[in-house]
Amino acid sequence: MKMKRRLQIGVIGASHCDSEIAELAYQVGREIGKRGAILLCGGLGGVMESSARGISEVGGIAIGIIPTYSKDDANKFIGITITTGIGHARNVIIVSSSDGLIAIGGEYGTLSEIAFALKMNKPIVGLKTWDIPGIIKTSTATEAVETLFEIINKGDR
Amino acid sequence: MKMKRRLQIGVIGASHCDSEIAELAYQVGREIGKRGAILLCGGLGGVMESSARGISEVGGIAIGIIPTYSKDDANKFIGITITTGIGHARNVIIVSSSDGLIAIGGEYGTLSEIAFALKMNKPIVGLKTWDIPGIIKTSTATEAVETLFEIINKGDR
Amino acid sequence: MKMKRRLQIGVIGASHCDSEIAELAYQVGREIGKRGAILLCGGLGGVMESSARGISEVGGIAIGIIPTYSKDDANKFIGITITTGIGHARNVIIVSSSDGLIAIGGEYGTLSEIAFALKMNKPIVGLKTWDIPGIIKTSTATEAVETLFEIINKGDR
Amino acid sequence: MKMKRRLQIGVIGASHCDSEIAELAYQVGREIGKRGAILLCGGLGGVMESSARGISEVGGIAIGIIPTYSKDDANKFIGITITTGIGHARNVIIVSSSDGLIAIGGEYGTLSEIAFALKMNKPIVGLKTWDIPGIIKTSTATEAVETLFEIINKGDR
Repeated sequence: MKMKRRLQIGVIGASHCDSEIAELAYQVGREIGKRGAILLCGGLGGVMESSARGISEVGGIAIGIIPTYSKDDANKFIGITITTGIGHARNVIIVSSSDGLIAIGGEYGTLSEIAFALKMNKPIVGLKTWDIPGIIKTSTATEAVETLFEIINKGDR
Repeated sequence: MKMKRRLQIGVIGASHCDSEIAELAYQVGREIGKRGAILLCGGLGGVMESSARGISEVGGIAIGIIPTYSKDDANKFIGITITTGIGHARNVIIVSSSDGLIAIGGEYGTLSEIAFALKMNKPIVGLKTWDIPGIIKTSTATEAVETLFEIINKGDR
Repeated sequence: MKMKRRLQIGVIGASHCDSEIAELAYQVGREIGKRGAILLCGGLGGVMESSARGISEVGGIAIGIIPTYSKDDANKFIGITITTGIGHARNVIIVSSSDGLIAIGGEYGTLSEIAFALKMNKPIVGLKTWDIPGIIKTSTATEAVETLFEIINKGDR
Repeated sequence: MKMKRRLQIGVIGASHCDSEIAELAYQVGREIGKRGAILLCGGLGGVMESSARGISEVGGIAIGIIPTYSKDDANKFIGITITTGIGHARNVIIVSSSDGLIAIGGEYGTLSEIAFALKMNKPIVGLKTWDIPGIIKTSTATEAVETLFEIINKGDR
């Protein structure tokens, strides 16, 4: 008997963001948690922190895949810290470990993650983020999470 | 308020092992789980599988930090799968993400992890493993886990 | 006395490409070699192979930073092979090891490299590639190489 | 026609060492260079710097595979700098990119490289280093380099 694995959802976005993006990330985190999935992120500030706060408030767990060797670099809402020490290359691990991803806002780091997600054929929905062919555009946190879960559940991951 | 983070304990050893080593790994997994910690391992067979089975049977969680991009390479007792895709280099991530480690048996891959643990000043206890200065030798699963937790709890990690 | 280091120029693009893109890559390789710089690339086919062929024909050297552990995966024009074994994460190493980059055509892998180049503030010129703010668009191989060398030589790298 | 690739020889050892070890590393670098091979190392101080100095004095080339993103971290005898940014995980790349390795002195970092070399079935000779089954012990720089080249040339790499 194989354990039923919980879904792992990646949330990607910049380590600094305005309050609108932070609120979207927070709501995305909550919605992921309510559906019983685990949240994966880069573990630092901005979108990573707001989404981790969101999921932690509904009793879910956020895993932070951080670029350094120091657990202290993780934000305070991260429950499990993976200290990769591989710098920007950790972006690939966030993407590959996720069953699907949600990109919220974001700058060049987020763009690299979007590129890897599309390269690896991972479903990826976007909220106010880069306009790259292959991303599914959505407008609200709930729509983003619902859309992503539908796609994942249709597939056989 | 900072979340109280659960301890993350690395269990390292070969992907093929005899039944004595497998039993030790299984007991180590159980003992880690009983103490409320999370088990980190390489996610494949042998020591990794037996220890993951042990912790899963007492309701704990095993995280598999695997070398490939394929979740299917994780053994069936892994609850959370981190698909690094970075090959042997993932050994560093297992070590750096652990508050302390237990080496059980093991071949050259395990030796690399022992070396990284000592390089990074992580407490590491050994059970029938490489005899390298810096490893704390123990004889039973319970002794290994108890010894490691004592050292970690004395420190300020 | 510090050795005068030769410039290291990254050439990025897809492992399969049409003949127009291949010709551009070949000419870019030649132009880099004529200026005494070293070419860095991902070491596989397509743009990587054509640019490596170009530089090797003018007596220059191409370094292949490849995703696997097997030297046999490098194309035959690669003079020095770095077998990273870290998969897509090797894209970061190509970018960070380059003093500047030229993107030619390209798909999602190339997009990830463009994103890392811009994240790391590396000068990057483009030939028929992704239209991302920060890339300097050029039209011919010679223009691309000349433009990049001017920017690098103006800086203090 | 496939380019005849030059041999790539890894030299591993600590970033701080005494004058005896430094002299051995320097001689090893010279001997590698005289045989027309390329030297791969971690690019920092100690054994890495002395061996790079040795090969550069006989007109050969040293490649530094460094842990950070900064070319300034490479010692001044490094001709080609690969800035991996992946920390200790770069040890795997040094090993996998080498046709064979020479370990000189060394601490835990070197032990990790020895372990990876043996794991990957790379020939490895040692000079006053860790006593691990699989390493071929030698006593002088010339003996170490000669022994390694003989083994490599007998194989079909």
